[in-house]
Amino acid sequence: MPTKIDRRSFLQNTALASAAIVLPNLGQAENSASNNDPAIAETLTGKGVLGKQKLRLGFIGVGLRGQNHLELALLRDDCEVVAIAEPDAGMLADSLKMIEAKGRKKPDVYDKGNHDYERLLKDKSIDAVVIASPWEWHTQQCVAAMQAGKYVGTEVCGGFSLDECWQLVNTHEATGSHLMFMENVCYRRDVMAVLQMVREGMFGELIHLEGGYEHDLRGVKFNDGKTPYDSGVEFGEKGYSEAKWRTKHSVHRNGDLYPTHGVGPVAMMTNINRGNRFLFLTSTSSKSRGLHDYILKHPQGGADHPNAKVQFNLGDKVTTLLKTSNGETVMLTHDTNLARPYSLGFRVQGTQGIWMDLNKSLMIEGLTKAHRWTEAKPFLEQYDHPLWKKYGDDAKTAGHGGMDFFVFHHFVESAKRNQAPQMDVYDAATWLAITPLSEASIATGSSPQAFPDFTRGRWTERKPNFAFGDEF
Amino acid sequence: MPTKIDRRSFLQNTALASAAIVLPNLGQAENSASNNDPAIAETLTGKGVLGKQKLRLGFIGVGLRGQNHLELALLRDDCEVVAIAEPDAGMLADSLKMIEAKGRKKPDVYDKGNHDYERLLKDKSIDAVVIASPWEWHTQQCVAAMQAGKYVGTEVCGGFSLDECWQLVNTHEATGSHLMFMENVCYRRDVMAVLQMVREGMFGELIHLEGGYEHDLRGVKFNDGKTPYDSGVEFGEKGYSEAKWRTKHSVHRNGDLYPTHGVGPVAMMTNINRGNRFLFLTSTSSKSRGLHDYILKHPQGGADHPNAKVQFNLGDKVTTLLKTSNGETVMLTHDTNLARPYSLGFRVQGTQGIWMDLNKSLMIEGLTKAHRWTEAKPFLEQYDHPLWKKYGDDAKTAGHGGMDFFVFHHFVESAKRNQAPQMDVYDAATWLAITPLSEASIATGSSPQAFPDFTRGRWTERKPNFAFGDEF
Repeated sequence: MPTKIDRRSFLQNTALASAAIVLPNLGQAENSASNNDPAIAETLTGKGVLGKQKLRLGFIGVGLRGQNHLELALLRDDCEVVAIAEPDAGMLADSLKMIEAKGRKKPDVYDKGNHDYERLLKDKSIDAVVIASPWEWHTQQCVAAMQAGKYVGTEVCGGFSLDECWQLVNTHEATGSHLMFMENVCYRRDVMAVLQMVREGMFGELIHLEGGYEHDLRGVKFNDGKTPYDSGVEFGEKGYSEAKWRTKHSVHRNGDLYPTHGVGPVAMMTNINRGNRFLFLTSTSSKSRGLHDYILKHPQGGADHPNAKVQFNLGDKVTTLLKTSNGETVMLTHDTNLARPYSLGFRVQGTQGIWMDLNKSLMIEGLTKAHRWTEAKPFLEQYDHPLWKKYGDDAKTAGHGGMDFFVFHHFVESAKRNQAPQMDVYDAATWLAITPLSEASIATGSSPQAFPDFTRGRWTERKPNFAFGDEF
Repeated sequence: MPTKIDRRSFLQNTALASAAIVLPNLGQAENSASNNDPAIAETLTGKGVLGKQKLRLGFIGVGLRGQNHLELALLRDDCEVVAIAEPDAGMLADSLKMIEAKGRKKPDVYDKGNHDYERLLKDKSIDAVVIASPWEWHTQQCVAAMQAGKYVGTEVCGGFSLDECWQLVNTHEATGSHLMFMENVCYRRDVMAVLQMVREGMFGELIHLEGGYEHDLRGVKFNDGKTPYDSGVEFGEKGYSEAKWRTKHSVHRNGDLYPTHGVGPVAMMTNINRGNRFLFLTSTSSKSRGLHDYILKHPQGGADHPNAKVQFNLGDKVTTLLKTSNGETVMLTHDTNLARPYSLGFRVQGTQGIWMDLNKSLMIEGLTKAHRWTEAKPFLEQYDHPLWKKYGDDAKTAGHGGMDFFVFHHFVESAKRNQAPQMDVYDAATWLAITPLSEASIATGSSPQAFPDFTRGRWTERKPNFAFGDEF
């Protein structure tokens, strides 16, 4: 039963809609990165499945996050979920039930431990894979999938080393396989409207941007081992879902462990890897108190609970300052251990104006009252992105306020065309690199850390290409 | 005609009101820094004028800011303005008119150039001086005034070198003369209410704080040479008021040039120099575009105006991260060249809660809804500081929303007692030092800069003493 989206998205025409937006300060925007980007053009070896058959999808990791993507895949007529690799029997069973409930064919199952995804990748009938495993599996699974010729969509995280960032880039360049970094916040409705305003020059020349991940995850990092949220103080072997694997990073590491929700939108607005790049960063960490405090005060915790003895390394607040080659500063925050409201803390500030999401307000010189905040809503509505205008209704039922629809839609449409995604392997490497650089800076008293240029100089030629059309 | 304040403030009793607030996490608070702080106790050599005669005040600098203080002095029955040093004939004439209009006696005038304040300081009948000159005069005037045995109140700015910060400390310790750093924002009503909440432990253990100076000063840094605000693109010799002297710092320097409005309140909440200290900072600067852009676009400017050729060094956005010995992080911002609304950007965040002034909201675990912002107003009213409860009506007519009343009131009452002020020379040195450290960090690619310990280790003994009573 095809939906409105499915019919629309199954385009015969491989060209994206032409860029309708005038970009006085960006030069000519490219509709497709394949046109004149040598690094990417030479890797476009496949033909894709567009207009021929359904995109045959494999899922590597169907925990709660993987199930979000699975749900979106099952809503589409242009996708077929043909294989799942998942070592956790419970999560696998839940996923198979979802598939059955939609009347879809049962996929092949790879459930023989953590490495069984390697068998999945040997199935030559699979066009693309979605990777939504615990963080520390992402790189090796992405590399193996690219080597197997799959089109790869990977969930977000922070990196562990610069080397693995290079591994992603090197594997892409060696194999020609594409990797899309599935950063959903790039598609947040207000963020995309502000991107349109940035491209119209309404903020003047960009000067300073902020973003982050300020999210009280105490009730995610700990649970009772049976239900995912706010249910106890267990983690690791005794935890459930993310508490099983995510919390150990707060025990052992100290840095911005999850930078991409903040940096993704900011990177798109400042054209990072497309005429601009990050030069260096410093990172400063506060003490770590929040998680220990949570265990002490929780009704199922207390001073005698074994986890009260755990020493957490992750500073409750990690603040990172980045400088770009074009002279902008970017501040990123990581704040997941404290009692606080959710906020991604976006700020976009230029010579002529400023937008902040915390107070949902802006000031645009000449358009709003000087020296005063004005409600952003009418502007966000006026500059609503063409993608949201077109697909807003379809996105409504998807997760995270609709963002998940767009990021999955872009993945599927790019994979169908075997075309470089607009959040590509170079973006993945750059954004992931923030974490090991942040850890290194903190470990050395906030000393500045130089950014690698993962494009090997191609950022001087690459053109902005994110979300210029209204197709995907 | 004595006002309510004047009668109240002319107290016979030198003791401050006893600390009514229970401070579980601070140890015993001291009402007066003189009680058991060896560094300060040994300098309390004078007896003050309390209950005997009026405080005889000299003013060094009566530009627009000095005139604010002058106005407050003229409202008080316990002060007599006996001398003014001011090289600018116009500003001097305006000040003398203010004095005459109040029916007060004409003060001695020292108007023979920039160094004539040295003659003022020779007048042994002067008890205390208020320094509100251009930034680069502060230190030498403070030093000379302390050497002359005056009680010194100095306007705020950022320092130029660590050496001059040490000069202030060394001179205080050698002479026993006190210096008060007149940071009015420490007395902002919401800030003081939040200080009360911090001291009640409502935010839990403090983790991260923010403050700054985000103020579009383009219309202050430039004018038409005749009126102070928004009137042209001249500065330096052709400018008027602050444009005459302040703007050159934006031409030549790059750093957080004005850190104290942000750091003052934050330092009081984190007990800097009183059981805590700043360990190091890093500072990152954006490019500089705003001032040049302003000149280009101003109706009286344009590409052919001579000032369009000026190269401004000051980054439009300077972000500084400080780490304290107790493990908190502090972020300070300096943002004075761009079109934007005024904001000091305060954030106070602990294990159990958060307050931000941008959205006038907070969250306190157990008291407000989890994961949600709640309007701060009822809390700010409930925790209104005793000083504001007592003097709020008197403060109404004073500048900057009433803050100016309190800072001047504290200066006068401390000077009358010849007692160490609660924002003392060690605070002055520490807060001023942020500027040269920030400049050094930016000049070396955001490298970390260690903070001097201006208390020479006494921060481990000094006790918090800011605003515990309801007197001053």
